[in-house]
Amino acid sequence: MQGQQQQQAYDRGITIFSPDGRLYQVEYAREAVKRGTASIGIRTEGGVVLAVDKRIPSPLLEDSSVEKIHKADDHVGIASAGHVADARQLIDFARRQAQVNQLRYGEPIGVETLTKEVTDHIQQYTQVGGARPFGVALIVGGIENGEPRLFETDPSGTPYEWKALAVGAERGDLQTFLEDNYDEAADLDGGIALALDALASVNEGSLLPEEVGLATVDAETESFEQFDDDQIEEYLVENELLDEGDDEDESEDDE
Amino acid sequence: MQGQQQQQAYDRGITIFSPDGRLYQVEYAREAVKRGTASIGIRTEGGVVLAVDKRIPSPLLEDSSVEKIHKADDHVGIASAGHVADARQLIDFARRQAQVNQLRYGEPIGVETLTKEVTDHIQQYTQVGGARPFGVALIVGGIENGEPRLFETDPSGTPYEWKALAVGAERGDLQTFLEDNYDEAADLDGGIALALDALASVNEGSLLPEEVGLATVDAETESFEQFDDDQIEEYLVENELLDEGDDEDESEDDE
Amino acid sequence: MQGQQQQQAYDRGITIFSPDGRLYQVEYAREAVKRGTASIGIRTEGGVVLAVDKRIPSPLLEDSSVEKIHKADDHVGIASAGHVADARQLIDFARRQAQVNQLRYGEPIGVETLTKEVTDHIQQYTQVGGARPFGVALIVGGIENGEPRLFETDPSGTPYEWKALAVGAERGDLQTFLEDNYDEAADLDGGIALALDALASVNEGSLLPEEVGLATVDAETESFEQFDDDQIEEYLVENELLDEGDDEDESEDDE
Amino acid sequence: MQGQQQQQAYDRGITIFSPDGRLYQVEYAREAVKRGTASIGIRTEGGVVLAVDKRIPSPLLEDSSVEKIHKADDHVGIASAGHVADARQLIDFARRQAQVNQLRYGEPIGVETLTKEVTDHIQQYTQVGGARPFGVALIVGGIENGEPRLFETDPSGTPYEWKALAVGAERGDLQTFLEDNYDEAADLDGGIALALDALASVNEGSLLPEEVGLATVDAETESFEQFDDDQIEEYLVENELLDEGDDEDESEDDE
Amino acid sequence: MQGQQQQQAYDRGITIFSPDGRLYQVEYAREAVKRGTASIGIRTEGGVVLAVDKRIPSPLLEDSSVEKIHKADDHVGIASAGHVADARQLIDFARRQAQVNQLRYGEPIGVETLTKEVTDHIQQYTQVGGARPFGVALIVGGIENGEPRLFETDPSGTPYEWKALAVGAERGDLQTFLEDNYDEAADLDGGIALALDALASVNEGSLLPEEVGLATVDAETESFEQFDDDQIEEYLVENELLDEGDDEDESEDDE
Amino acid sequence: MQGQQQQQAYDRGITIFSPDGRLYQVEYAREAVKRGTASIGIRTEGGVVLAVDKRIPSPLLEDSSVEKIHKADDHVGIASAGHVADARQLIDFARRQAQVNQLRYGEPIGVETLTKEVTDHIQQYTQVGGARPFGVALIVGGIENGEPRLFETDPSGTPYEWKALAVGAERGDLQTFLEDNYDEAADLDGGIALALDALASVNEGSLLPEEVGLATVDAETESFEQFDDDQIEEYLVENELLDEGDDEDESEDDE
Amino acid sequence: MQGQQQQQAYDRGITIFSPDGRLYQVEYAREAVKRGTASIGIRTEGGVVLAVDKRIPSPLLEDSSVEKIHKADDHVGIASAGHVADARQLIDFARRQAQVNQLRYGEPIGVETLTKEVTDHIQQYTQVGGARPFGVALIVGGIENGEPRLFETDPSGTPYEWKALAVGAERGDLQTFLEDNYDEAADLDGGIALALDALASVNEGSLLPEEVGLATVDAETESFEQFDDDQIEEYLVENELLDEGDDEDESEDDE
Repeated sequence: MQGQQQQQAYDRGITIFSPDGRLYQVEYAREAVKRGTASIGIRTEGGVVLAVDKRIPSPLLEDSSVEKIHKADDHVGIASAGHVADARQLIDFARRQAQVNQLRYGEPIGVETLTKEVTDHIQQYTQVGGARPFGVALIVGGIENGEPRLFETDPSGTPYEWKALAVGAERGDLQTFLEDNYDEAADLDGGIALALDALASVNEGSLLPEEVGLATVDAETESFEQFDDDQIEEYLVENELLDEGDDEDESEDDE
Repeated sequence: MQGQQQQQAYDRGITIFSPDGRLYQVEYAREAVKRGTASIGIRTEGGVVLAVDKRIPSPLLEDSSVEKIHKADDHVGIASAGHVADARQLIDFARRQAQVNQLRYGEPIGVETLTKEVTDHIQQYTQVGGARPFGVALIVGGIENGEPRLFETDPSGTPYEWKALAVGAERGDLQTFLEDNYDEAADLDGGIALALDALASVNEGSLLPEEVGLATVDAETESFEQFDDDQIEEYLVENELLDEGDDEDESEDDE
Repeated sequence: MQGQQQQQAYDRGITIFSPDGRLYQVEYAREAVKRGTASIGIRTEGGVVLAVDKRIPSPLLEDSSVEKIHKADDHVGIASAGHVADARQLIDFARRQAQVNQLRYGEPIGVETLTKEVTDHIQQYTQVGGARPFGVALIVGGIENGEPRLFETDPSGTPYEWKALAVGAERGDLQTFLEDNYDEAADLDGGIALALDALASVNEGSLLPEEVGLATVDAETESFEQFDDDQIEEYLVENELLDEGDDEDESEDDE
Repeated sequence: MQGQQQQQAYDRGITIFSPDGRLYQVEYAREAVKRGTASIGIRTEGGVVLAVDKRIPSPLLEDSSVEKIHKADDHVGIASAGHVADARQLIDFARRQAQVNQLRYGEPIGVETLTKEVTDHIQQYTQVGGARPFGVALIVGGIENGEPRLFETDPSGTPYEWKALAVGAERGDLQTFLEDNYDEAADLDGGIALALDALASVNEGSLLPEEVGLATVDAETESFEQFDDDQIEEYLVENELLDEGDDEDESEDDE
Repeated sequence: MQGQQQQQAYDRGITIFSPDGRLYQVEYAREAVKRGTASIGIRTEGGVVLAVDKRIPSPLLEDSSVEKIHKADDHVGIASAGHVADARQLIDFARRQAQVNQLRYGEPIGVETLTKEVTDHIQQYTQVGGARPFGVALIVGGIENGEPRLFETDPSGTPYEWKALAVGAERGDLQTFLEDNYDEAADLDGGIALALDALASVNEGSLLPEEVGLATVDAETESFEQFDDDQIEEYLVENELLDEGDDEDESEDDE
Repeated sequence: MQGQQQQQAYDRGITIFSPDGRLYQVEYAREAVKRGTASIGIRTEGGVVLAVDKRIPSPLLEDSSVEKIHKADDHVGIASAGHVADARQLIDFARRQAQVNQLRYGEPIGVETLTKEVTDHIQQYTQVGGARPFGVALIVGGIENGEPRLFETDPSGTPYEWKALAVGAERGDLQTFLEDNYDEAADLDGGIALALDALASVNEGSLLPEEVGLATVDAETESFEQFDDDQIEEYLVENELLDEGDDEDESEDDE
Repeated sequence: MQGQQQQQAYDRGITIFSPDGRLYQVEYAREAVKRGTASIGIRTEGGVVLAVDKRIPSPLLEDSSVEKIHKADDHVGIASAGHVADARQLIDFARRQAQVNQLRYGEPIGVETLTKEVTDHIQQYTQVGGARPFGVALIVGGIENGEPRLFETDPSGTPYEWKALAVGAERGDLQTFLEDNYDEAADLDGGIALALDALASVNEGSLLPEEVGLATVDAETESFEQFDDDQIEEYLVENELLDEGDDEDESEDDE
């Protein structure tokens, strides 16, 4: 109780530190990320895999409209976890940066450069008053000079580079799963299999195609590809992860 | 009581998160949506149906002035639930976006594009200080490349695509009704019948023409059409939903 | 008491919603409207009638200076209830809109268009911080394409179209009186009679000319006409509503 | 006590209404007006009279510097009550409006027009944040189209037209005195006599010339004239109101 | 205690009135004036006298740097009491106004005009938020059209004209002394004698030259003259007011 | 408890001093620095050494992405401790300053000049409202006129020049270690050895290459060089500081 | 306790006065000055002496980087006490003013003019909101028209001229020492001796060269000269003030 009062004295503005040097509003924004369903990124030798868990609250909702994976540029995809509308702002920002880079320098933006432009933008919202931090974490994956790269942006505006990571709900269990099962030598299909395995591990072992989002950026073609429900179903069957329960009548959606 | 005090510490500004990562002002704006009468959107193969419940507080009020369905462009209609004056702002915003698109690119704006421009606008009011969120949800329905599309915008600024949805008062009951009765193969008349059935289901089984708003966007003609009380009465009679009680002397209003 | 404290937590800023989705400052602005004396608008086939109740606190006050009816354009009149100085701001705004429309399009502004420009202006004061809402309701009456139109603007920025309405003090009783006595077939004189009858009904059955304001917009001539005390007295005599008590020495005022 | 706490919740900002629709800061500004000594305006057929009560706290203070009557234009005078420095701001504003009108239209500004420009300016300070309301009431008197006109501006920004009025300390007693003794047929001298009588009525029946300010705007000449202590003394003698006590050695001041 | 709480509710912002119509921050600024040592102004037929009390906290402080009398223009001097740094701001403002007037109109600024430009500037700081009032009172003395004029500016922004006045510490005693001893027929030397007498009356009857500031604006020459310690010592000897105690080794300072 | 309340009264804004003249928000920002892992700078005759401790929370995290050492210009490196995203802002600022200097004056920016431009920037965030201080300390090392220079910037915006220093976690122990072991005559390799010794002294005597960052600016070449894990491992082996435990499979990362 | 609460009501903003007319934030800024080590200024016939006490928290800190004496222009030096980063801001401001003066008028800025430009700048931070006052006092010494001048700026923005003064820690004891020992006839060497004597008087009678800063502005050459540790050591030996204890290995630093 005393501790709560103590905390409440410092957590209502982004422009103040607490006595122990913490930024509570940024920490609360991290809680907003945890409220979102999980997103996973995996780097393989053959490219980058992005996979997301989607909750479909009603069978009448188009599952394709629960957007958690976005194409930022031909060679870069972004998965998000947390506040959906905030994610859209950051993805629009990333797309504009990619376009500006192409226009200015005549070449695709580097994945690391793009990530850091996004994190610098996020940091501003943690230091200057008049707005709240972004309640979202992004996984930015793409190909740079032929090499797959995989980054995370967190609500403080810090960039991290990963071999494989999870953000959002159940991050702890998912990250442990990835650490236990990550194989540096895997190809893109191996990465997809690991991603779906991981998602299934926190969904009672099986998945519905319409409740999964999946995309890759291939190191060869350097191009972003998002899979539809049929393709996802194939991968699920292949990996023996398909949930064969009801609700399947929604699976022919496309966009 | 303790919980209330806890909540009150974080719910008085849009620029702060609560310790569990929630944005209370956005959640309260959703309550403003629930205070409004219900609006329904239904996507059929033949086009999109918008139907709304209107409360007429006095027989002297022109029911046509209780505006809940608006034409955003020739091929797009918008129904709203919640704070009426806020809805007008967003609809004006949507109309301007549609005009700008027509001027810039010489073609009608896509329904999805239009929806996302509106939700990006809404999101700004949930992150930057100095204003409150919009207390309104919109149903955006229209034809894009010959295909009917149906979207929702919520007060957080998240876009959703639906086959059929309800917003506003009694959303829960109405959404269940739609889930139980939605038929993907229905034509436009089938969609109208379902919409009126749904509204009647929460109004003791029958409706007065002047307390209903109805509009369609036809997939063939790609044009928005709003129905007057006489036309609505026909549909009600056809579907055996007409309330044959008093107050009928108001039914010849038009606009 | 608990309820009061609850309410006080959310009612001191226009930029926040209460937990149940209400905007208390807008509701308090409606109370400011109720503190004003009553204003009445009546639409007849022959045109629109505006009538107002005026409290003259001192016999030395020029009753003509208690301005509650204003000419917005040749074909539009506006009656107000509530905070007088706020009303003046909105009426100036309306006049400027009417002039701009005339200059831009070479034709008189539509009554509905004018009303909605005013309500959009009002809405801004309910969403963006740094100012309070307008504590006033307006009745906007005029002729559009030869048809009489009658609108209300409320402090939330919502426009309503009416056949007949009252705003301000005793709105409840007056609206009931209008509902009981409104005759769609009445001509302009019938409208005047109804308006004066209504005002008298909440003033012990009779009225003093100097405590009434009266104006019409005639559907034929499409022009706004405000009546002086002598003309009002004639109407009162005609309708057997003249208060024949003292204070009559003020009745020769004009402006 | 309960009531006080209730009130204190709403009275510390001009941008909020109280639950009963009041603007406390405007009401407190009216209290600032009552803290000022009385000012009186009287309209006669021959012109307008302005008379003020002046408290001279020290015999060394130049009574001419206690400015409560000001010339706004050749044909308009203004008397004030309340916060002196605020009054100066409004009078400067009024003078600039008068000059602008003369420059733009080549003719003197109307008294009513001038008053309403001042009240619109005052209203802004009651609605938009970042400043407090003006703590002053003005009496604006002048000649318009040959006719004497007399207006009041109050801290809410409402204009009133009067035959005769008092503002400031003891407004109640003075207004009653004016109501009892006002004669519509009086000429300018009659107006001066009534004004001095009224002031004397709240000063034990007699006045010192240096504690009175007096000015007229003559309907014939349409020009503002302010009287010096000798002229005021003559009027006091004439009307048997001269205080023949001590302190007379200050009476030869001029400016 | 109750009263204190009451007061504290309204005294922390310049943009609010208290329920009894007071501006507490302006009243507190007047307290800042009283915290400063006394300043005196005296108008004589021969010109204006400014005299000030200076506290020298250390013998190593240059008494000439305790600036309380300033030349605003050739024909105008200003003495201050209260917050020294605030006084410097207002005096710089006054000097700029004097220069601008000279440039625009080719003639020296009037003493009354200059004073009112300063008080209008002060008033702004009492009405518009974002700054505090000036904690200083000025005595502005000079020659206008050959006539000596003497004004006061107070923290509310009100101008007063005086024959003789004191501001700052012990204003009450000093003002009474001036009222008792002021002689309208005195010449400049008489004015100097009265000013020094007054200062001595609150300093145990005698003064040290370095603890007094003295200046005049002569009606003949229309020019400001500030006296050094030697000249002040002569006046003190002449008027039998010289403190012949220790500390005399500081008396040869000049600037 | 009393002390805490006292403190809480003054620590929630950067624009206020506490009664004892402290800026609590700046002191809390220093706590944010202590929350970061340690960074060390050492000046030798042969150049400057920067070494940092890195915590790798997961084996899947690319240790190269935990950026704590940055190249600011060819001849200047910067190590940081504290809030990572804040550090990135300051380093971007420093880089821009270095570029501007090169463009304007055609020569590399001085290390002292660069440091002071950064500290001036930091100071602004401690005095002007609307933002929080930077929660980071930087060690700026480089070559100026052939001489190695080593500076610290702290959250108050004060620059310090050091022979050797530590910032971040365990600053106290590390600084004592440096004071006890610093040798002014050491060369660059000696500096590297001291830096790694110091880091090992607070890590149980040994280090993993991937948990150390290391860079130098050589006085001869005047160029910044950052070492990869293999090079760091060599230095660790050479100095008998290599942790030969598990986790070595991460050691082949580079960037 | 009651007093504390009283005080806390008014000390948290620079834009409010306390009921007794004090500006608490300015008083707290004076406490920030007292937290800094002492600085001394002495005016002699031969020029101005600036001397400062420096605390060196670690033997690895370059004592030359603890900057407390600065060259503002060729003929002006400034010593500071208090918040170091604030001092840098004011000194940069002073340097710019000196440069601007040289550019505009082709001659060096006067010492008094320079001081007052700085104090006017400081005053702004005590009246206008959005920033805190400067927590620093400056001693400005230089030559103007061949004469040595010595000024102080305090956090309120008041300028003072001194023969000799101390600011910062132990100001009381130091000022008494100066008052007891100041000799108006001393030359520059005499001034240096007095300054070092004073500093030693509060440091147990002796000083270390690296813990003292010393500079002069010579009246003959009109140029600022700062002394290095060797020169300071000579002065200390000459005046029998050298601390012959340990720590001497730091004494060969220079800059």
